[in-house]
Amino acid sequence: MSTEQDDREQQLVERVLASFANTPDPRLKEIVQALTRHLHAFVREVRLTETEWQRAIGFLTATGHATDDRRQEFILLSDVFGVSMQTITVNNEAYQNATEATVVGPFFVEGSPRIEHGGDLSFGASGRPCWVEGSVTDTTGKPVPGARIEVWEADEDGFYDVQYGDDRTAARGHLFSDDDGRYRFWAIEPTPYPIPHDGPVGDLLTATGRSPLRASHLHFMVEAPGLRRLVTHIFVRGDALLDHDSVFGVRDSLVKDFEPQPAGTLAPDGRDLAGSAWSRVRFDIVLAPAR
Amino acid sequence: MSTEQDDREQQLVERVLASFANTPDPRLKEIVQALTRHLHAFVREVRLTETEWQRAIGFLTATGHATDDRRQEFILLSDVFGVSMQTITVNNEAYQNATEATVVGPFFVEGSPRIEHGGDLSFGASGRPCWVEGSVTDTTGKPVPGARIEVWEADEDGFYDVQYGDDRTAARGHLFSDDDGRYRFWAIEPTPYPIPHDGPVGDLLTATGRSPLRASHLHFMVEAPGLRRLVTHIFVRGDALLDHDSVFGVRDSLVKDFEPQPAGTLAPDGRDLAGSAWSRVRFDIVLAPAR
Repeated sequence: MSTEQDDREQQLVERVLASFANTPDPRLKEIVQALTRHLHAFVREVRLTETEWQRAIGFLTATGHATDDRRQEFILLSDVFGVSMQTITVNNEAYQNATEATVVGPFFVEGSPRIEHGGDLSFGASGRPCWVEGSVTDTTGKPVPGARIEVWEADEDGFYDVQYGDDRTAARGHLFSDDDGRYRFWAIEPTPYPIPHDGPVGDLLTATGRSPLRASHLHFMVEAPGLRRLVTHIFVRGDALLDHDSVFGVRDSLVKDFEPQPAGTLAPDGRDLAGSAWSRVRFDIVLAPAR
Repeated sequence: MSTEQDDREQQLVERVLASFANTPDPRLKEIVQALTRHLHAFVREVRLTETEWQRAIGFLTATGHATDDRRQEFILLSDVFGVSMQTITVNNEAYQNATEATVVGPFFVEGSPRIEHGGDLSFGASGRPCWVEGSVTDTTGKPVPGARIEVWEADEDGFYDVQYGDDRTAARGHLFSDDDGRYRFWAIEPTPYPIPHDGPVGDLLTATGRSPLRASHLHFMVEAPGLRRLVTHIFVRGDALLDHDSVFGVRDSLVKDFEPQPAGTLAPDGRDLAGSAWSRVRFDIVLAPAR
C-alpha cells in the first residue's frame, strides 16, 4: 500500500475520533472512540469491499427485523461471536479459587418457585431425575449459609418452560443453602438443545459450518451478602458438544461428573423413583468477595 | 490484570476463532475471524460492563426497528462512525493524481434524465443557479470523451427529490463529456442539510455532542470504459461545516471555489437569469485506470 493511501485511511480514523472529542460523558467517549478504532482497523485489515459492506448492512437489517418481544436476534448474534461470553469473562475476573461464571442466556425469569432442601424443581418437566448437591463457601473455605441458589434448565425435548407459551412453570426454582452452607435438590439431567437457528444468525452458522447446539447444562445463579453474584452453568462430562458449544459458555472447571444410577439404586433421600434410572452430580460453589 | 484472567480472555478468543475454522468460503472465513478478533479486542480494552452490553443490544434493536423500506438507519450508523467512508477509501486506492472518491449516500437513483451540454439539471428545484464546468481526463492528462457524468444534489431546503414522496425528478441528471473530454451544465449551488436525526443514530449524535449536518456538496458519478468508476462530491470552499461533516465525506482535494456572480453578470452561455445572482465552479475530473 502506498504511503498516500495509508495516510488517507489513518487521517479518516483521526477525524472520526476527533468528532467524538466533545462527548460530555467520559465513559461514553471512551467507548465510542475505542469502537471507532476497532471498526476501522477491521475494515482496513480485511479491505472490506463495497459489496461486502452492503451485505453486512443487509444482515444487520434482517437481524433487526427478526427481533421482537419474544425473540432477541442481536443477543444471539453476540452469543455466537463469543461477545456475550467475553463480556461475562471481563466482568467476573479470576479470583483465587472462585467458581467461574458463564453466560446468563435468555431464559432466566424472575419469580421462580422456592423449593425446600431435597425438593424437586422439575415440576413435571420431562427428563431423567438428577440429584444435585454441594456446598457454598467463600474463597477461604468458610461455609456461606442462606445463599440464594437459583436453578433453571431445558427439559428433555430441549425447551425451557417459557418457550411453550402456555404460562407453565417447570424445571426452575430456588432454594437457600443451609446452616452449614450445603444444598441438595432434585432436577432433571440436562440434554443438548439448539439455539434458535431459523433466522439470520442461523444462516450465519450454516454459512460458517457451525452447529447451533449448546452443550448440555444446568443454570445456576448464586447470591449472598458481601459476595460477588455468580451466574454460571454446570456441564456434563463426556458430552460430545463440550468443545463445540455454540455460545462458548463451557469452562473446564464447570464440567462435572453426572453419575448414572441404574434403576433400583436407592435415592439419597429415599425417594421412590418408581424403578427408573437416575443420576447424581456434586457442585461445590465458591463465591468471590463483592467488589 | 492477573495472568489467569488474561489467559481466560485470550483462550475464549481462540475458541471462537477455531469455531469458524471450517467455513467453506475462504473470504467469509477471513472476515468472520477478523471481526471476532476486533470485537473481542474492543470488549477487553474498554472492559465493557454487562449494563453497557445490554444498552448496546437495545441500541441495535432500536436501529433495526427504525429501518424500513424508506429509511436505512444502519447505513446512517455506518456513516456517522466513518465506516462507510473508510470502505470507500479502501476500495478507491490512491492512484497518482486521480480524483478522490467519497461516500455514495442514500439518494442516488437510477434513470435520471439526460441533459445536453449547457443544459439545466435543476428541473425547477429551489436554489441559486450554479454553472458547473470542467474536463474528464485519465491520469496521463489525456481527455476522455463520452464519459458518463451523473450529478445529483439536495435543493435549497435540504431535500433530495426522492424525499418529497411525490415522484418528482429534480436536481439530478446525466450528460456525456464532449469530444475534447469537456462538460458544462447548470445546477444549483449546494447548501448544508442534516442527515435524518430523529432516530437512534440522531440520539447518538446528541449524546456525543455532534451535529447531524452535512457540509454542502454536489454528487458526481463518472464512468468511462477502461477507467475506474468514480463516485464523489465537490464541496464549497468557505463552508463552516467542512471540518464537521457528519459522515466524514470531505477530502481537501474535493473542496472547490464556488465563485459568486452578482446579479446582472453575463452567463457563460448567454442564459437569461432574470436578474438573479448565480455562481460558477470548475471541477476537473481525473479517472484512474480500471483495476
